[in-house]
Amino acid sequence: MSLLVTGSIGIDSVTSPFGKAENVLGGSAVYFAFAAAQYVPVRLVGAVGDDFPPRFRGMLESRNIDLSGLEVRSGSKTFRWTGRYEGALAEAETVEVHLNVLSERAPVVPEKFADSRFVFLANTHPTLQRELLAQITSPRLSVCDTMNLWIEIERDSLVETLTRVTGVILNDGEARQLTGRTNLIEAAEFVLDLGPKFVMVKKGEHGALLVSADGPAAIPAYPSKLVRDPTGAGDSFAGGVLGYLASQDELNGPALKRAMVHGTVAASFAIEDFSLGRVQKLPREEIDDRVDEMVRMLRFD
Amino acid sequence: MSLLVTGSIGIDSVTSPFGKAENVLGGSAVYFAFAAAQYVPVRLVGAVGDDFPPRFRGMLESRNIDLSGLEVRSGSKTFRWTGRYEGALAEAETVEVHLNVLSERAPVVPEKFADSRFVFLANTHPTLQRELLAQITSPRLSVCDTMNLWIEIERDSLVETLTRVTGVILNDGEARQLTGRTNLIEAAEFVLDLGPKFVMVKKGEHGALLVSADGPAAIPAYPSKLVRDPTGAGDSFAGGVLGYLASQDELNGPALKRAMVHGTVAASFAIEDFSLGRVQKLPREEIDDRVDEMVRMLRFD
Repeated sequence: MSLLVTGSIGIDSVTSPFGKAENVLGGSAVYFAFAAAQYVPVRLVGAVGDDFPPRFRGMLESRNIDLSGLEVRSGSKTFRWTGRYEGALAEAETVEVHLNVLSERAPVVPEKFADSRFVFLANTHPTLQRELLAQITSPRLSVCDTMNLWIEIERDSLVETLTRVTGVILNDGEARQLTGRTNLIEAAEFVLDLGPKFVMVKKGEHGALLVSADGPAAIPAYPSKLVRDPTGAGDSFAGGVLGYLASQDELNGPALKRAMVHGTVAASFAIEDFSLGRVQKLPREEIDDRVDEMVRMLRFD
Repeated sequence: MSLLVTGSIGIDSVTSPFGKAENVLGGSAVYFAFAAAQYVPVRLVGAVGDDFPPRFRGMLESRNIDLSGLEVRSGSKTFRWTGRYEGALAEAETVEVHLNVLSERAPVVPEKFADSRFVFLANTHPTLQRELLAQITSPRLSVCDTMNLWIEIERDSLVETLTRVTGVILNDGEARQLTGRTNLIEAAEFVLDLGPKFVMVKKGEHGALLVSADGPAAIPAYPSKLVRDPTGAGDSFAGGVLGYLASQDELNGPALKRAMVHGTVAASFAIEDFSLGRVQKLPREEIDDRVDEMVRMLRFD
């Protein structure tokens, strides 16, 4: 099934206790796309400046990612983010951020993408998320992410966006901040009351939580010793979730649970190296093996 | 199979955003015993002062807990702890602590308990843990807990204790502090290298991690909306783990994994009310139902 993602496409520089990567490919839509493209072709909608290196284009094109919706704006500059991780790598410290092209007009969804059945609205201004979603004729599943900034300064617009989507994927801090609920199940139920059919709460190294009409289901993170750069873990998680769902017929509770395993596995690979180092040539078999490993690990009967 | 626990028996006063409980039954060995006694009779070894209320004795005796090893010392006072939880209830703030009888000589293991096959050494001075363990003739499984204090001031003695036990159950902060490893699997492997066959790392609301020769296995916490007082969660976890194992023939990897579900469920009940409020009359059927629920929740295939 057709899967469209819109979000940031960036040039990152990242430092962690395990090293440094400078001017590497990054951005929410990019991490999502690499993960999701393991399952179905991905339609990428976003904008970059004319400084966007051709080899980054090549990396995306080589992975089943359709770049018809990638606007290259001459005279504009690509989004740039410089971040640093320390200690337990739990949280990124933003050293420098240049919105550049992201602060200009929204990218346009190409007409031939209007029939997309699965849509992921990676973190951006919630009004923009609605404008982008409105360009999709009849999505079967639409999921959005968000960030602390919009919860703070654009709460009403964000709530409006939440009433329009089928699902929400956000992290634990955002869920608490958005809802004022400390307990994550209560926080997720608060979001469900706004309209979405399901909420997935990402908890980083502590796994994820799914809350839907079927009740809550929790999953631990893949128990990994190899964590070099957590950048993109959350978007890779979303990519695994939506990529898997777009490859299935069912969208019911059990499918959402299985999707959460695929998201968990996608994230576990993303963090093993800087940028897309681990996932850019990752064979699908390695994903399937790790999914099987997770499912076996989580069999307790 | 015979299961012995030694640890603190206390009188607690606890405040959380959900209320207050004053002068209630508490202590590591007590929480452990209530959880484990759901599976097998429990032999409790510990000391209290002559201020220990007879009704607390009655509560323990009513639950399959043998008090032959409970020393009531006249002229001594029972261990007292006053704690407070705030916000997300993640960590207790100790408002007041009086070691009282815990700072005196160690309790003696009654001769008739020397044949115990399963032993849990709840948190206490590591030298004391070894002295207590030495009084058990031929334990099949011996497991210890510890705390930050001993890691700081009695590291060598603690390491010596770790070389003598079959298993270790400790929390994530302790695992990191003890080993200097941030990654919890690496931390657990560090402990395994000292001798134990398995390590379980408790992560509170984030679940638990088992590391053994079979590799790592993670489990989320029971997704609970009802958390009033987290006191005793860790010891209840250990009680569920060892109680379950003592009721089984096998001590292999799959049994340890199943035990972790029972520990998780035991903890989930303990935190639903202050002190032993939820568990003191808990029917075994409710535990089995919740174990089944966890196992179903964690089936992702």
